[in-house]
Amino acid sequence: MYRTHTCGELRISDVGKEVTLSGWVQRVRNMGGMTFVDLRDRYGLTQLAFNMETDATLCSRARKLGREFVVQVVGKVEERTSKNDKLATGDIEIAVSQFKILNIAKTPPFTIEDETDGGDELRMKYRYLDLRRKPLQRNMILRHKVNIEVRKYLDEQGFIDVETPMLIKSTPEGARDFIVPSRMNPGEFYALPQSPQVFKQLLMVSGFDRYFQIVKCFRDEDLRADRQPEFTQIDCEMAFVEQEDVLNTFEGMTKHLFKVIQDVELPDFPRMPYAEAMERYGSDKPDIRFGMELNDITSLVQIGAFKIFDSAAYVGAICAKGCANYSRKQLDQLTDFVKRPQVGAQGLVYVKYNEDGSFKSSVDKFYNAEELQKWAEACGAAKGDLLLLLSGKREKTQTQLSTLRLEMGNRLGLRDKTAFQPLWVVDFPLLEWDEETERYHAMHHPFTSPKEEDLAMIETEPEKVRANAYDLVINGVEVGGGSVRIHDQELQKKMFQLLGFTDEEAQEQFGFLMDAFQYGAPPHGGIAYGFDRLVSMFLGLESIRDVIAFPKNNMGRDVMIDSPSPVAKEQLDDLYLKQVEKK
Amino acid sequence: MYRTHTCGELRISDVGKEVTLSGWVQRVRNMGGMTFVDLRDRYGLTQLAFNMETDATLCSRARKLGREFVVQVVGKVEERTSKNDKLATGDIEIAVSQFKILNIAKTPPFTIEDETDGGDELRMKYRYLDLRRKPLQRNMILRHKVNIEVRKYLDEQGFIDVETPMLIKSTPEGARDFIVPSRMNPGEFYALPQSPQVFKQLLMVSGFDRYFQIVKCFRDEDLRADRQPEFTQIDCEMAFVEQEDVLNTFEGMTKHLFKVIQDVELPDFPRMPYAEAMERYGSDKPDIRFGMELNDITSLVQIGAFKIFDSAAYVGAICAKGCANYSRKQLDQLTDFVKRPQVGAQGLVYVKYNEDGSFKSSVDKFYNAEELQKWAEACGAAKGDLLLLLSGKREKTQTQLSTLRLEMGNRLGLRDKTAFQPLWVVDFPLLEWDEETERYHAMHHPFTSPKEEDLAMIETEPEKVRANAYDLVINGVEVGGGSVRIHDQELQKKMFQLLGFTDEEAQEQFGFLMDAFQYGAPPHGGIAYGFDRLVSMFLGLESIRDVIAFPKNNMGRDVMIDSPSPVAKEQLDDLYLKQVEKK
Repeated sequence: MYRTHTCGELRISDVGKEVTLSGWVQRVRNMGGMTFVDLRDRYGLTQLAFNMETDATLCSRARKLGREFVVQVVGKVEERTSKNDKLATGDIEIAVSQFKILNIAKTPPFTIEDETDGGDELRMKYRYLDLRRKPLQRNMILRHKVNIEVRKYLDEQGFIDVETPMLIKSTPEGARDFIVPSRMNPGEFYALPQSPQVFKQLLMVSGFDRYFQIVKCFRDEDLRADRQPEFTQIDCEMAFVEQEDVLNTFEGMTKHLFKVIQDVELPDFPRMPYAEAMERYGSDKPDIRFGMELNDITSLVQIGAFKIFDSAAYVGAICAKGCANYSRKQLDQLTDFVKRPQVGAQGLVYVKYNEDGSFKSSVDKFYNAEELQKWAEACGAAKGDLLLLLSGKREKTQTQLSTLRLEMGNRLGLRDKTAFQPLWVVDFPLLEWDEETERYHAMHHPFTSPKEEDLAMIETEPEKVRANAYDLVINGVEVGGGSVRIHDQELQKKMFQLLGFTDEEAQEQFGFLMDAFQYGAPPHGGIAYGFDRLVSMFLGLESIRDVIAFPKNNMGRDVMIDSPSPVAKEQLDDLYLKQVEKK
Repeated sequence: MYRTHTCGELRISDVGKEVTLSGWVQRVRNMGGMTFVDLRDRYGLTQLAFNMETDATLCSRARKLGREFVVQVVGKVEERTSKNDKLATGDIEIAVSQFKILNIAKTPPFTIEDETDGGDELRMKYRYLDLRRKPLQRNMILRHKVNIEVRKYLDEQGFIDVETPMLIKSTPEGARDFIVPSRMNPGEFYALPQSPQVFKQLLMVSGFDRYFQIVKCFRDEDLRADRQPEFTQIDCEMAFVEQEDVLNTFEGMTKHLFKVIQDVELPDFPRMPYAEAMERYGSDKPDIRFGMELNDITSLVQIGAFKIFDSAAYVGAICAKGCANYSRKQLDQLTDFVKRPQVGAQGLVYVKYNEDGSFKSSVDKFYNAEELQKWAEACGAAKGDLLLLLSGKREKTQTQLSTLRLEMGNRLGLRDKTAFQPLWVVDFPLLEWDEETERYHAMHHPFTSPKEEDLAMIETEPEKVRANAYDLVINGVEVGGGSVRIHDQELQKKMFQLLGFTDEEAQEQFGFLMDAFQYGAPPHGGIAYGFDRLVSMFLGLESIRDVIAFPKNNMGRDVMIDSPSPVAKEQLDDLYLKQVEKK
């Protein structure tokens, strides 16, 4: 037997026991005639004590132990003279009577400590060593806990975990599909699912009523900072539901998770229409932990004084409380910030509402104090506040103001990582116009149902039709999203027409789902959570990479196993495939 | 709201309530002035009643409802006059006051009944309709339950669910790998995992101590009757364990599952060495629900009387209790059975030990009663029993006898589907000689550790070295298997040498794992269960296909979605791939 206890288990009440422990050598310290070794495993650290006077041979051997050696020790639990109250096992140590090296270790390329000296690249390459560090172990263990709790909750709510296939069919629309050649069927390919969307809808047609799955999905696309080619979704679908049924069910689950995982009682989730979110926050995923809302002051500023404002479709302002004392340098920084390509504004106008009631602005040439006073009032600004104005096309400027708002929120410490403000954003537009292809695209996906009361506009003003689609947003992060689907065959046909599909195209791409719908599809709707994102939110992490055991880098590469990689010509021959030289 | 109750929920105590139900029309019956509609959902059936006299319009509409229409009804719960005690809701019916057709349905191509009239192919094509049938819903729900219980149990035992990547690396040995071209890295490929073996070992190096995952695995190979290109494993690994630790942990889990899922108390699992299993049952996965063991009677029969026996390396017999009265026809059937290519025997010798104490055999020409009496004694045969003998090469003949034994077990009703006899088969040979490539192959995989006491033979008689490898066998079905791994770097190197790898080849194929092992690998071992197989065993099903929601056929095709299928040339162009004509 390799151990009687783990390295996190022994307490003062165990003093006197003969125990066997196994683990990794965290560090070796010599203090006078004593040698202390910290032995580590997943469960904790235990101090081992060796005494040069009582057993010189053993103690000398212990002194030669290297970092990360794997050892098994036998000894007696003793009370420590100098206790360590930061450590669960800090009251005791093991007076070792014998030990065995189970495996030696080369010196790791970086320190296995909470704060390591290893850079990103090195730690990715030696991910198995990085995963020894406590912060990463904590992340993975929390991920496991969230997984377990999601399942428990959904099981109790009558949801059934049904595994849908990974080897599915590529569609002409599936430009981001990974395809998988088949040796048994040369010339033919499977595709890896971007989501189990179609299968979960089929399961509703099959009468499974409530389905869920925590499932890998795949997308072969250029990776933005925080995307992975394979990612995990909590995927759910319910039959015989309206939008509110879905929202209430998953509001319940989300509250439950925050309660059991973080001991946080979430407030009820407000529902905010997409249009309102855009007006008030300039974003379809507003961070409502703080105010600083967008104010449309277009009509106030367009008085024929300042050309740039006069010609803008929209002039908006946010009010930064207590920032009237911002220095020239600070204001320049903000101007630089909004001009960055990621934000894309032309310039920034500021108005300081000074403590003495006077105004100082970058547009003093064009507007007098009285006018600026009106702006301040419209924005709810008080003495000591700073107005920041952007102008241009409506939606674009709102988006830029939203980015500026978040930046100011960060600067002013308004985005408390320990506070959680959830929100349902609802009533998304059904369609969005694509300039490039000159046709409408489904904003969510082509099975999303329109609002019944907007149906009349579907042929005349399709861009105004709202969808039964919703996103779950927490602290400005989109955690999940879904919709109530179309179950009516006629409406589905009309949707495909609107999206510019011929009957043949619709049949080719979604034929089996449309066939299925002819055999009695129930009303249904669902949601998918980004599981990686949800877990990183619990941990207050910016990136999803640290909640994934073996992530890929932003070129889609696993640098630890060196993948993807070339394959043998024979493997391609078997598949009747040939590599073409890249020009 | 679509419903106040499900179709399986209402009881006599609900009589008088006004309810709303939604579901599928199972059938419509007209009885005099009444019309009865069975409404179905996942939870059950509820009878709807319509009365032509009290509401002719409504009743006439109900009479027009087709099979599988989706309807929503409002009505009052009433006590039935003729109750149906086979139905949970059989005491009540709904006196419907209004209903709405939520969706119409084409007539399904087969009946949605427990026993359907649809053939295999048709049901695969319309899998979403087949999945409406109760037996398949029951299978999926049980699968969900097993999944939940496995997780609960392992969580309580300190196992952590860690997701390992699906996009991994192809190795030259990975002839059965599915490969996945990468658009971001043209000319390079990922591979889909045949198992997470390497990653779970890395997680042990990382100190996760106890890992599990219920995970999809992939194998691109010719599919035998009951294989799928994608299948699901319960994959587990533990650090600081010896073989018995692993066996005890998973014996515990298996017992727990049988208890909570089937209410079956499994006995303790015997451990049977591979060599013993082969001798006694001719199989490394013996069905021990019944005896009828193999008897080696080689020395008894080799008396220079019968050439075929004399020249055979092995002559074995099984004793079929009470079968001495088998007819000529029955014996001919058995002879035909063993001569089938799947069994491959040359012929069958029988010896009847008649009730009157006389013998009748197919080798009466060569052996007298006294000699046959000795055989009967060696096989523990009594009057009325039948001996069945096969001869030839040792292992091959044992395997044939094993197949015959199972056939006789079936014929004699000795393989009770409600009885479960689990067994650990242990001490598998470490290596097996491959005639074709003329080298040793790892029987399990190249990381499997040899028995310490056999190590001395590793260079002299490698075929005799036993491994710390084990299979979990229940009722003759291999449900899981695993091994204690090699954690010693030197031993691992020796193994690769034995398997005929050069250092370079070993480095190329397993480099990152061997690298990882240099940084302090703990002793570790694990197991993987075939999850599909386990679930089908609980249900007493022969095939795993009916416990998979959307299975593929034995050509690896999903006939419902028509996959795999050709892809657009543009998709291949993006990947710098070209299709080669099949000759």
